[in-house]
Amino acid sequence: MCELLGMSANVPTDICFSFTGLMQRGGNTGPHRDGWGITFYEGKGFRTFKDPNPSSQSRIAELVQEYPIKSRAVVSHIRQANRGGVSLENTHPFTRELWGQYWTFAHNGQLTGYESLETGRFKPVGDTDSELAFCWLLNQVEGRFPEPPEELDVVFDWVAKCCDTLRSLGVYNMLLSNGEYVLTYCTNNLHWITRRAPFGKASLIDEDVTIDFQQETTPNDVVTVVATQPLTNDECWHKMLPGEFSVFHLGELAYSRKG
Amino acid sequence: MCELLGMSANVPTDICFSFTGLMQRGGNTGPHRDGWGITFYEGKGFRTFKDPNPSSQSRIAELVQEYPIKSRAVVSHIRQANRGGVSLENTHPFTRELWGQYWTFAHNGQLTGYESLETGRFKPVGDTDSELAFCWLLNQVEGRFPEPPEELDVVFDWVAKCCDTLRSLGVYNMLLSNGEYVLTYCTNNLHWITRRAPFGKASLIDEDVTIDFQQETTPNDVVTVVATQPLTNDECWHKMLPGEFSVFHLGELAYSRKG
Repeated sequence: MCELLGMSANVPTDICFSFTGLMQRGGNTGPHRDGWGITFYEGKGFRTFKDPNPSSQSRIAELVQEYPIKSRAVVSHIRQANRGGVSLENTHPFTRELWGQYWTFAHNGQLTGYESLETGRFKPVGDTDSELAFCWLLNQVEGRFPEPPEELDVVFDWVAKCCDTLRSLGVYNMLLSNGEYVLTYCTNNLHWITRRAPFGKASLIDEDVTIDFQQETTPNDVVTVVATQPLTNDECWHKMLPGEFSVFHLGELAYSRKG
Repeated sequence: MCELLGMSANVPTDICFSFTGLMQRGGNTGPHRDGWGITFYEGKGFRTFKDPNPSSQSRIAELVQEYPIKSRAVVSHIRQANRGGVSLENTHPFTRELWGQYWTFAHNGQLTGYESLETGRFKPVGDTDSELAFCWLLNQVEGRFPEPPEELDVVFDWVAKCCDTLRSLGVYNMLLSNGEYVLTYCTNNLHWITRRAPFGKASLIDEDVTIDFQQETTPNDVVTVVATQPLTNDECWHKMLPGEFSVFHLGELAYSRKG
């Protein structure tokens, strides 16, 4: 299994604190030794840092932890390989362009019988079930919506249905973003929290670090963090239900469909 | 104008030395203050580091300079914006998937009358002439070769012809790679050098750094570096001619078409 970490915020926000917790699980407090990656959106562009090496020993992960890249949408993943070898092309997140937007995807879980999914023009480069599922999902979305509709709600509905199909093939926890929206799907393990004023303090589970969000934020900031397991032990995280699909926008839960 | 840097090698090789020279041109010895990026291929996967800030002041550029990522194919770019604002989505290199391969592109120059080029399913995300030219080029290649032919020579011929078309729209110096091949096209400024045994010493033009390649290599290493302007002042760089198109493979010049 792997661990997912996502963020949606109404102002560019750094994710150093949460990432510090996550990266400890990459070979230190957790068994996820098979690479990690993180994608930051800035405007319509994005930056991805990734490494097939364990995050707890990665120079690049160190930089990401120390260097506050501010973003409104983040997708991150640390990997414990099941399908597909340990290599850069199999390291999440994966990004592809659709409708002139970059879409970024990370998956936790394992699928069976996925090999026959039709990916159309979105051809996997590596050999993970995850990248193939992503390519299939984009192909499904493009097949139904060759151009983006004005209201994306119908797209979200369709993505949710496609995720149901993927869940029928195994464990499918997902983060997906186009830089504006962060979409999540839960099979078994996905938690979320929205932080807003009045901000308090929080302590990481995986490392002895406490943050006072009040020092780091303005009163109007709204920031949601989504993670496989709660990252802090003194805040109240919501556990998502099997089949739950959610859309976060500018830090707020914008849409939710229970499974 | 911008500066390009590319590498092709027969063994995974780091590009720290050349990158050190290039990054000085990003706001220090050169005027290219509007972002930089570098893509390293490792197997079929790739990593891109990019920053819309000047490379000479970038924390991330510092990391890339110090951290020897070993690769057989590299595409790098520092930018002085002409078409398109300074933003992450306008920062080269650009990467898209075609045939289940990641293709990475960087451009130096400026085009006019490019807006009507048909990009098909490859939709630009930013608003540079460069990304649009890249999308058009991939669309041309996919239109002619929906599947990759067994011998890529015919693809290279076609890419060269497409580059001629782009050159007719202005200044078009290009680096393009799928991780195995590094393709170059010259309108006015592009230089290359192949280093092989017996290796000697070389000194950067842009910073007081000398390297003894013999200490860094084995006798079988073959490494080609392509750059807008020579990066060293004590080696003999080849200047490419207007319209010259070349393909480098495993460090060697594999194909060349004079303009």
